[in-house]
Parts: sequence; C-alpha cells; structure tokens
Amino acid sequence: MTTRTFERRIRLGMVGGGQGGFIGGVHRFAARLDDRYELVAGALSSNSERAAASARDLGIKEDRTYTDFADMAAREAARPDGIEAVAIVTPNHLHFGPAKAFLEAGIHVICDKPVTTTLAQAKELAEIIEKSGKLFVLTHNYTGYPMIRQMREMIAAGEIGKLRHIQAEYAQDWLTEAVETRGAKGAEWRTDPARSGAGGAIGDIGTHAFNLAAFVTGEVPDRLYADLTSFVPGRTLDDSANILLRYKSGAKGMLWASQIAVGNENALSLRVYGDKGGLEWHHEAINQLWFTPYGEPKRLITRNGAGAGHAANRVSRIPSGHPEGYLEGFANIYSEAAEAILAAREGRTPSPDVVYPGITDGIAGLAFIEAAVQSSKNSSWMQLDC
Amino acid sequence: MTTRTFERRIRLGMVGGGQGGFIGGVHRFAARLDDRYELVAGALSSNSERAAASARDLGIKEDRTYTDFADMAAREAARPDGIEAVAIVTPNHLHFGPAKAFLEAGIHVICDKPVTTTLAQAKELAEIIEKSGKLFVLTHNYTGYPMIRQMREMIAAGEIGKLRHIQAEYAQDWLTEAVETRGAKGAEWRTDPARSGAGGAIGDIGTHAFNLAAFVTGEVPDRLYADLTSFVPGRTLDDSANILLRYKSGAKGMLWASQIAVGNENALSLRVYGDKGGLEWHHEAINQLWFTPYGEPKRLITRNGAGAGHAANRVSRIPSGHPEGYLEGFANIYSEAAEAILAAREGRTPSPDVVYPGITDGIAGLAFIEAAVQSSKNSSWMQLDC
Amino acid sequence: MTTRTFERRIRLGMVGGGQGGFIGGVHRFAARLDDRYELVAGALSSNSERAAASARDLGIKEDRTYTDFADMAAREAARPDGIEAVAIVTPNHLHFGPAKAFLEAGIHVICDKPVTTTLAQAKELAEIIEKSGKLFVLTHNYTGYPMIRQMREMIAAGEIGKLRHIQAEYAQDWLTEAVETRGAKGAEWRTDPARSGAGGAIGDIGTHAFNLAAFVTGEVPDRLYADLTSFVPGRTLDDSANILLRYKSGAKGMLWASQIAVGNENALSLRVYGDKGGLEWHHEAINQLWFTPYGEPKRLITRNGAGAGHAANRVSRIPSGHPEGYLEGFANIYSEAAEAILAAREGRTPSPDVVYPGITDGIAGLAFIEAAVQSSKNSSWMQLDC
Amino acid sequence: MTTRTFERRIRLGMVGGGQGGFIGGVHRFAARLDDRYELVAGALSSNSERAAASARDLGIKEDRTYTDFADMAAREAARPDGIEAVAIVTPNHLHFGPAKAFLEAGIHVICDKPVTTTLAQAKELAEIIEKSGKLFVLTHNYTGYPMIRQMREMIAAGEIGKLRHIQAEYAQDWLTEAVETRGAKGAEWRTDPARSGAGGAIGDIGTHAFNLAAFVTGEVPDRLYADLTSFVPGRTLDDSANILLRYKSGAKGMLWASQIAVGNENALSLRVYGDKGGLEWHHEAINQLWFTPYGEPKRLITRNGAGAGHAANRVSRIPSGHPEGYLEGFANIYSEAAEAILAAREGRTPSPDVVYPGITDGIAGLAFIEAAVQSSKNSSWMQLDC
Repeated sequence: MTTRTFERRIRLGMVGGGQGGFIGGVHRFAARLDDRYELVAGALSSNSERAAASARDLGIKEDRTYTDFADMAAREAARPDGIEAVAIVTPNHLHFGPAKAFLEAGIHVICDKPVTTTLAQAKELAEIIEKSGKLFVLTHNYTGYPMIRQMREMIAAGEIGKLRHIQAEYAQDWLTEAVETRGAKGAEWRTDPARSGAGGAIGDIGTHAFNLAAFVTGEVPDRLYADLTSFVPGRTLDDSANILLRYKSGAKGMLWASQIAVGNENALSLRVYGDKGGLEWHHEAINQLWFTPYGEPKRLITRNGAGAGHAANRVSRIPSGHPEGYLEGFANIYSEAAEAILAAREGRTPSPDVVYPGITDGIAGLAFIEAAVQSSKNSSWMQLDC
Repeated sequence: MTTRTFERRIRLGMVGGGQGGFIGGVHRFAARLDDRYELVAGALSSNSERAAASARDLGIKEDRTYTDFADMAAREAARPDGIEAVAIVTPNHLHFGPAKAFLEAGIHVICDKPVTTTLAQAKELAEIIEKSGKLFVLTHNYTGYPMIRQMREMIAAGEIGKLRHIQAEYAQDWLTEAVETRGAKGAEWRTDPARSGAGGAIGDIGTHAFNLAAFVTGEVPDRLYADLTSFVPGRTLDDSANILLRYKSGAKGMLWASQIAVGNENALSLRVYGDKGGLEWHHEAINQLWFTPYGEPKRLITRNGAGAGHAANRVSRIPSGHPEGYLEGFANIYSEAAEAILAAREGRTPSPDVVYPGITDGIAGLAFIEAAVQSSKNSSWMQLDC
Repeated sequence: MTTRTFERRIRLGMVGGGQGGFIGGVHRFAARLDDRYELVAGALSSNSERAAASARDLGIKEDRTYTDFADMAAREAARPDGIEAVAIVTPNHLHFGPAKAFLEAGIHVICDKPVTTTLAQAKELAEIIEKSGKLFVLTHNYTGYPMIRQMREMIAAGEIGKLRHIQAEYAQDWLTEAVETRGAKGAEWRTDPARSGAGGAIGDIGTHAFNLAAFVTGEVPDRLYADLTSFVPGRTLDDSANILLRYKSGAKGMLWASQIAVGNENALSLRVYGDKGGLEWHHEAINQLWFTPYGEPKRLITRNGAGAGHAANRVSRIPSGHPEGYLEGFANIYSEAAEAILAAREGRTPSPDVVYPGITDGIAGLAFIEAAVQSSKNSSWMQLDC
Repeated sequence: MTTRTFERRIRLGMVGGGQGGFIGGVHRFAARLDDRYELVAGALSSNSERAAASARDLGIKEDRTYTDFADMAAREAARPDGIEAVAIVTPNHLHFGPAKAFLEAGIHVICDKPVTTTLAQAKELAEIIEKSGKLFVLTHNYTGYPMIRQMREMIAAGEIGKLRHIQAEYAQDWLTEAVETRGAKGAEWRTDPARSGAGGAIGDIGTHAFNLAAFVTGEVPDRLYADLTSFVPGRTLDDSANILLRYKSGAKGMLWASQIAVGNENALSLRVYGDKGGLEWHHEAINQLWFTPYGEPKRLITRNGAGAGHAANRVSRIPSGHPEGYLEGFANIYSEAAEAILAAREGRTPSPDVVYPGITDGIAGLAFIEAAVQSSKNSSWMQLDC
C-alpha cells in the first residue's frame, strides 16, 4: 500500500454529470477517493434548472454554476482561483467542443471515452492539445487496475516471452432487448449514431477491450477484420462485434464485444499468450491475475499480495485480500492525473511511474472503431489509421 | 444504484490514524467516498511531531491539531464549528478513553472494533452512551457489504426457512511466522494482551465473523465451546481459534478464525443453512451471493443485479458487474452513520432502512471473546454474557 | 442415474491403439465402462511384434490378432463369432481405408475423428456407409457429456429463445514449443499434413469445438472467415486458429482453437446466447451448466441435480455432486452406439433418445477444416460445403 | 498416465448390490474400468428372485448365483475356478458377517465403509483378517483420487512443514427433509441405527472426511469434541456433526459433516495448513490442488499436469485437462487392490507405491464414530480408541 501526501487539492470543474446520469457520479467518486481534487465549478447540464439543482447537491457555489461550457471555460480561466482541470463527462458527441474550449482557455482536461465521435475530430483535438501545452487525460479507467498494471509490467519484462495471441472480451447483456425505446436514458444515446458516433458496442465497450489489450502488451494491432451485428430489431448501431486482430509483430488476436450476451453483466477479460507464458485476467476477479510460465503450475498473483510488483503495488491502497473495485481503479486514473497536474503546476516532470491514457489512446480507439465499421461493411481487412 | 443528496458535510475529527498506520487511512477513505464528511480536526498521534506532520498531510489546520484526545474533546466541544463526530482508530486498549471523553463532550463517536478490551468496559461504555444521548457507531465494516445486507434481508424474509446451521470462517496467514518480533507494527499490538485484550485472532478477526453471523441471521449464539491455540512459539494470544456455537433457537454453528492458515489472505466467509434453503458468501467474491432454495438450482445473486433487493441496492453505488470492494463496504457504514447523525442534528428519526453496528454489537463481541477464552481454558461450554 | 440391462456384450475389434498410444486406450476404457462390449480382435499395429504384444496385454487371442486391417475385416466377417463392430483409432490418414474395408465386410464402424483427411474422402465414405447399411459412429466424444446434452435439450426447447451468438473455444498449450521434433509421438503425426490432413489445431481440436456448437444448437454455420497461424517456427500446419462464423439463421459466432495458449490444458468451452437467455459450459467444470434467463439470476444446473432434464440424466451414472469425467462422456458415445447396434441386430429402431455423431458430422467437420484453410489463404468468407 | 499390463483378470464375487441399489453399481464400474477383474459370482440379494434377475443382468451364470453369502463362500472356495476376492456392498450392519465368512474361506475381501457398525466388531474383524492371512480392502474411495495422493506425498515430503491446522468438511443436502419416510431406500437404512450403527452423517460421510484427513496427513487425531444434531424431526441419528479435533503432534482441526446443508450436493473438502505452506482441495474440482508455499503465490497443481508427482501420476489414466471423476478414483482403489491380490497370488510383496485403506482405517473410523457419539452425549473430549 502506498501513502500519498499532497500540498493542496487540485481545483476541478465538471461538464456534464447532472442528476440522473451514471458516469458523472463515477468521476466524482474517483476524484474524491484519494482526496486530490476539490470540485468547485460545473456546467452539469444545459438545462439551467437541472444544472443548478445538480450543483447544489454537490456543494458547488452558485456563482460557479454554469449552463454553458464555453462560458464556464472563459470565466474560470479569468478567476485567480479558477479551476485547474475540468472533467468532461457528457455523451460522446459533446466531448470535442468542451475539450477544445477548456484547453484553449489553458485548463487541463480529463475526458471520458471515446474521445470524440470521429477519428478526424480526434486528430484535430490532438493538435489543439499539442498547441495548448495542457494535459489531456482520457479515462480508459480499466488501465487503472493494479492487476492490469501488473500484467503490463510482466509483459514488458518479458515474462511471457514474445507475444503470440491475445483474446480480449467485453460482454454485457443490458441491450438484449430494445430498452432504448422504453426510456433507458443511457441506452438512448448509446444506440444513437448522432450522439455516439459510428460505433455501438464497439464504441461503448469494444474500445475498452481494445485499449486494455494495447495497454498491457504495448502493441496496437495494425489491421483488423470485423463482423458487426445489430441483433435487436430497429437498432442502427452494432450491439455485438466479432473482430480478428493482426499485429505488425506477428501476434494475432480476437476481440469480442457484445451487449446482448445474456448472463454477462460486465464481463471484460483479457488473456495474453506468448512463447514463454500466459496471463489471464477477468473483471469479475479484478484483484487476481493468473500467470502460467510454460510447463509450470499456474500461479495466482493477487493485488498487493505475493508475486505483485511495483507497478501494481503503487496503485493499491489496502492489503491483499481486501478487494478493491471499479471505483478504486477509476480513482487511480484521477490520481495519476493529479500527479501530472501537480508536476505541471510546479514545472517538473512527473515520475516515470505515472501512467494514464491520453489522446494517443483516443486516436487509436477511434481508428479502431472506424476500421471495424469499414471492415464489416467491405468484408476486408482494414488498416488502423493511427 | 442510489443517489444521495446532502445539505452539507458532517464535521469529523479523528483520534489515532497517524502516518504509518493502516486502519486510519481506511476510515478516511470511507468517510470521503460518499462526500458526507469533512475531516477538520485530529489527535492523530500522541507524538506531537508525528501528530503535526500527519495533520498537515490531511489538510487539518494547525489550531485543530491535537496530541491529546481529552484536550481535543474539550476544545472541539467549545467551538461553534466544532466537530460533530469523531472517529476513533487507535489500538483496542485506547478505544474506551477517547470514546468516553467525546461522548461526554456531546460528540457522536464512530469507533473501530473491538469496542474495548474487556466486556466490563464495554458495558460501562454502554451506560455512558445511554447517558450521553449521542450516537455510537462500531465499524464492523463487513456489515456494510450489499450482499451481506441481501443475506440479512432474505433470512429475515424466511427465504431459507428456520435456521439450522451456520458455518463462519475468517482465515488469514500474515501471522504464520513471528512477524511481531521483526518490526511489523500491526502485528506488535495485535499479539500483545496489554493492547489487544484477551483475544488474538478471535478478537482481531473472529469478532468480525461472529458479528457478521449475528447480523445476517438476527441471532446471537447463547453458548460456545472454544479451542484456542497459539501456534507460533512465543506468542501469548491465540492465532487460531476453533469454536462450536449453539443458539437458543436450536441452530448450531462452527466458527474458525485463524491467522496462520497459509494461502488465505483475508478469507472471510459465511454459509447459512435453514430448512428451506442455503446462502453462501465469500469475501473473495463480495459482489456475489449464492442462494439455493431446497431442491432447486443454485442461483447467483449479484450486487445491483437480478435477484438483489432493496436492502442491498440502497447501499450500492454502481451497476452490477462493476465490482465494489472493501472501501465501499466500509464507506457504507460511514454513510449510514451520516444518515443517523443528520437525523439527530435535525431532531428526526432516521429511516428504518438505516442500519449500522453499535454498542450492542460491541458488547456481544466482547462477550464472545471472553467466553471463548474461558471455554478454551476450562474445556466447557460457556454462556455469552450479553 | 439410469441403469441399463443388456442381453450380452457386443463383439468388438480394434484397428490401431497399440502400446504407447493414447486414444486407443481411451476407446477401450469407454467400451468397457458400461460393460456393453467385449474386445475380441485387433489389428493394433502394423508392426507385427507390437501388434502381438499389444493384443496379449489386452487378452485378445492369438488367432484374432492381425497386422493388416483388410485381412482382419475379411477373416472376422467370415467367422460365426466374428466382431460386430470395429473401433478405428489410427491417425487421421488411416481412417478411410479401414472404415471402407469393415463396412464393406458388413461390420459396424466406430471411428475416431476427424473422419478422413479430406472432404472428398468423407463424402465418398458417406456413400460407402449408405450402401453398406451399417452403422457409422464418429467419436466426437464431447457430445456425450450430460451437460452438453442438457444444453442441447434446453436450446431445442426454446429456453434461450432465438439463437444470436456462439462463442466456442478450445485452447491447449502442449504444442507451445516444437515438441514434434523432440520425440513426442502424438505431436509428430498431428503436425504432419500427410498424416493429419490440411488442418493442424483446427483439425485436432477446432473440429471438436465446431461439432459441439453444432450439436447443441442444431445449426451448422454456412460461412466462415478464418485466420490460421503456425506460430512455432518450422511447423507447417496451424497451431492457432481464429475464426468468425455466420449462420443462415442470422446467428453469428467466434471460434478459437489454439495449441499454443500457455496455461490452457484442455480448455474447451461453449457459450451460447439467444434473445431470451444464455448458456455457458466449460470443460474444467464438466458437471456444471450455467443458465441465465434474461433478467433473472444465473442458475447452476448440475449433472443429475436440480434443473437437469431427461436428455442429461439418461447418460448420467452416478448422483449429482459425484464428478463424472472425460472417460464417462466418451463411454456414453460407446453406449449410445451399443444401443444402436443392438437395435440393428434385433431389426428394430433404437429409441429416439439415442444420439451419437456420425458421417454427417464428419463431413461437416471436414467442410469446416477445408473452408477454414481456404478462407485463411484467400482472405475471404468461405461457404461450408456440407 | 500409467499403462498397466496384466496377466489375467482377478475372479471377483459380490455380496449385495442387486437391482435398485447405488453403491453396488459403483463397485462394478470401479472393478471394470481398468479391466483387472471379472465378476463371476454373486449373492446380490437375499431375495432369490431379485438375486437371480440381478445376476442375469450382470452376466453371472446361474450356478454361481447365490442368495446366501455363507453358502457362496463355501461353494466358491471349493471350486477350482472359485472367486479370488469378494466385494461386500451391503448396508453397514451386513459387512461383518460376509467379511468373516469369505476371509475364513480363504478369499480376499473388498468391503464398503464403514467396516462394521461397532468398534468392537471392527477389532474382532481385525483379528479374523490377521488369522486368515487374506487381504482386506476398505473402499474409502476418496483416497484413490490423484490429487489426494499428491497432497499426501507433498505433506510427507515436508512441503507444508509441521502440521498445524486441518479443516475437513463433507456437506450434502439430500437429508434436508425426512425423505426416509417417503420411500428413499438409501435414506431408510442410513437413518436407521439398527442398520447403520451409532452414526448418521458422521458414519456415512464424516468417516470419509476423517479418513481423508488421516490419509493425507499421516496422523489420526487422538481426541475429539463433538456436537451432533438431528435436525429433521423424528430422525434418531445425527444429520449434522460439528467436531473439534486434537492431534498428539499439537495440530488441531475442525470437521463438519452435514446432510442438511442446502446447496451442497457432495461437498467434500480438505484444507491443511503447516508452518511452511497450505494445501486446499475441493471435491467439486477433484483434478485440482491448491498449494501455497508461505509468502509465495498460490499454485494450481493439476492431475497429470505441471507440479504433479509420482504418487498422483501413477493413478492417473489420461492427460491433464481431461477430467477424471468419482468412478476413476474408486477404480484406483480396485486397481491397487488388484496389484496386491496379484502379488499375493504370486507370493511376492507389492510395490511400496501400492496404497489402499484397510482394517486399520476401518477401526479408526469406528473409533471416530463412537468417540463422537460419546463426546456429544457427555459434553467432553473423548480419546479415540484406535
């Protein structure tokens, strides 16, 4: 378990995340857990009444409650006690605008994924980030899990040898029926191309599996072959995606993302095989990692337990056997971001241990979505343009 | 998932929990997670230098940094913005004094378990609490887990019928060797009767298993038969406890608490059988509960998923399939306490849904420890004096 | 548990399966378990010394010990007490010849899979079978497992609704290194196109996963897209196969077969999702089947336990909770064959409950292998020619 | 995988095991699996019609079909081709008589457990065995499992160090209700003291757990403290047993045997902890053994897989990852017995590898039952008289 000291909390704003949503609350839990942030401003909703009520709930003062993100960016930038960073937790199509506005106002951005709805826009954002000199953190939260960090460290250290095969899955079942027609808010925008972009399941959860595979292996596939399906009648976007992956290194992979796989609540898993060993991780048992050195018994590495290394232990809070969960992993991204923001504030380089997803991951994610959609349409292998 | 609104945070103080400890940090995480508290004062260590440094780390102001709990109680009680509640996170022998001081100063108390080192003292404290009219919350944190709440609700609703057998276990392995002689701070006081009381493993973890069994079944055994052992040479207190339980209702049970069971990190588990069904829960899979109605297939009830009811869902934060962990369960106790404190502040009765362990549980825990120690010494069944 | 009565044992011969092999012994265990067969003749090896020694080990008399299958077929057919059925357990390229010889001699055939090394040959064999009027049983042994039968029965009964997605896997790790160059007999012929046919991992294990998916769903995919790889340097045939499946019904699937996935001993698994439910089965827990009706808790159906139906129970021998294994499943195929052989002997139709894989499955398997090899070569979807 | 050669099968008779029973069939599967026995004679039932029908089913000739075991012993002993061994598979109270008769007739005995209904009788039988010079094999079948052999080998080799704590469980739920009053044959005699002896659950399944603990550790507890219960109204014998164990070596243990634990089909498990490591085995996953060397990651040892040693591998038939089950374990006892019988026939000592339970285990089992019953009655620790 690591302990962290801090000088003072980072002043944080939030765009989106008003009453009734899910992910906004998650970001707030994540920001709060390690006490590295103070939420002081917000444009929590474009509906002024809802924005005000939501802000009141969160203890945000009236004069820092906004209904318009551009207004918020301008006014916060002008305050001596203005926010240093903003969390953008709106639906996908409303990421780019706020991100641009805050970056250009000189404010660091923490943004939900996928970064934008198109690859072109993601690349445009990359330039804006570059120019702004500000930090951009993409909350591919699963990269914050200690056992995922452990996997990454072990693969980088050669413990499974040369990479051969990756089996990535993300299965859910909450879109098994047409719940988007029955008032399920989260389902509405996720199944709407105008708000989600070209990807349904591949955008919402496939990108997580894709990102995780890249994070732990250090490799992004250069080509993919996809077969996307919308099983639920009337649904435009894919709700199940079957994808083959090829890597420049010669490694291959399969990626399955589905939101109609009955019996799967949130079954993200990653299995990686090299010529010397294999690693297996399942979201249902996030505090455990299975490692098999070829020809030896499988070993159970546990969070903060025997076999766990530096990369995992530095993002663990409590002793082994005491389960950490989803919020803790999400909080790790926020705390990594806090390290980077403090370093920026103080004009120093953060420790090389500090790792978080950024615009490069965002671009890769969009390249993945667009290649998958094209491949499925054309029945051909597609290059990932990233 | 429930969302919670609040008027303003509860002003919290802390006794104990300075740099280097474990449980103080856990209490702070727990207090912070749902944003119901603000830590504004502390007597974090009796060493003034360490107290000051620890307070600085936590953003506690200098004028509210204390080295003496009595002083803190008096001065905080005198402030108009004084703390409303205090968290006591010292070793066991230092619970009673601070608890008494703060209660008598009119401040609510949240106290780590076991409540005191002797049953007599626990009963004395009960009177002090009674007299004070203040709230006393004992952090038997495992009662905060949604699936434990689910178990309790189902048993109360008769879903497993008349109770027959309880199998409670809490196995760890961190005291397999004499680590207390090699500088392991947490091990030092836990193996020292002067600081821990009469119970070793039964006090430290056995009481958790005991409390959990009582919490879910609504029954406290009236007799027990114990065989305690100190396996590690030189250790005075038990490091492994084998206990038989008998209930007035005719139910029976077994309780095993061990800190020398190699391969068990923190293996708390509870299996409860009635004449109509069985329920099984394991800490390693805290978001899952197994329910078997007699003669039917076993069913997997998941946190916030299908089969989960009101009692579990109201203490869940995120959707099913997104693991919650130890800190979330601990935070539930803090948030239940917050509900009760706010109700007290506003002169109303909290919702009957609000549930947290208190002095009754503390007395039962000490009665359990003392009966176990006596039984093991005398080789006879002992009544629990609670 | 079903009990079976029989008039007398079926006289069985065996081709292949001499000392040192694996699968011959398995067939003998399977034939013996339910006491439905008596092994009385064999051409166990083409090496006469090894043939004789192997026969002696098995209690086969000298005058019924052969070195040539054609000779055996002729002479056994001529005996009044000649064999009624022959088990062919040679490497793949030696299935067709013996099968033809025995069928044409009027002897039923039980043959290891894949049925032949080419699709053309499999189709030719189908005609020979047809003409012979004899039974042909293909030992896709996994179809013998009670929980696989259960899955099939439930899908046929509509318990998961309309089929949507199939996730089939068969992962092993014994070919992670070039063991075929180091004297591993089983690896030698399996990695040799001359003896195995065009498929490596897809032929050896992929066909099992393919067959199982077809068996439980009652559907054979009409198209597939494959990406086959030989990861181990110097190996000609695939040792890992990534395959996408499409069904006429609109269902889709993924099939992964790999013999280089370190940490997987024999990880066959099948997950099937419909619009009303999901079913999951893993070889490691062969006596268990997970069933989730949409929106309800997952249920654990166990062999001979609550929730198991007629199709599963009639092929179970012992009570629930007493694990049956691989040999029991294999034996079920033999016992189903025995039912069919006895019925044939007595000129009656066997009960419709009796189910075993035959030449249709064999043809589908070869069509699968050839389509996969072609698809991988051409980078295009291929029809299955069956 | 070991292969076994044999000269010829052992001529076996059976007492009990007629149509409708369970355990007789299991013994026959076990005898048949490795082809070491030929069942040629039987007194399968005392009802002559049922005896005849049962024998016909099994291919036993009419002149070797008996209704009286004494008659059978005498006549088989007199035949030149008489049986060499007899399997006794009657209810408990009918073990002693046949065992005595066959031993005195010079025929080896394979007997179901518990060996007799009283300790005195078990000791008397020991003398009869001694005098007869014949082999006596007690089918504590669980000792035949490869992973149990592995556990035993590892403990003997000191891999977990000095023994400290044993946690043994055997939980079932089939006696949750009074099924013995509703025609469940197996339940009738098992709940009847006249036919079962003094123990209910402790006799039927507790002895298995007890025997297994002794088998793997090489230690029999010298004292126990028991709390037995008959939960089901009207039942005389215990259906749930809570037991504390103490060993001369200083080790301790807990043993729970219950037949009313809803949701447990046949949950036998054994966890053993020493000062250097821990071992855990569960019947539900019989092909797996968990080993934790203190301070290192838990390791998964699999049947015939990495980490498995000679003792386990010699009783394995098929490769790792191919599950073996209950019948295979039972068959291992029969095949060990066959090794011993052949050695006896040939006047040589069997290999020291050959291990099977015998009368010593039977006496210990009865001592366990009687001590438990006494302890529970007297509320005192009881010595085991063995």
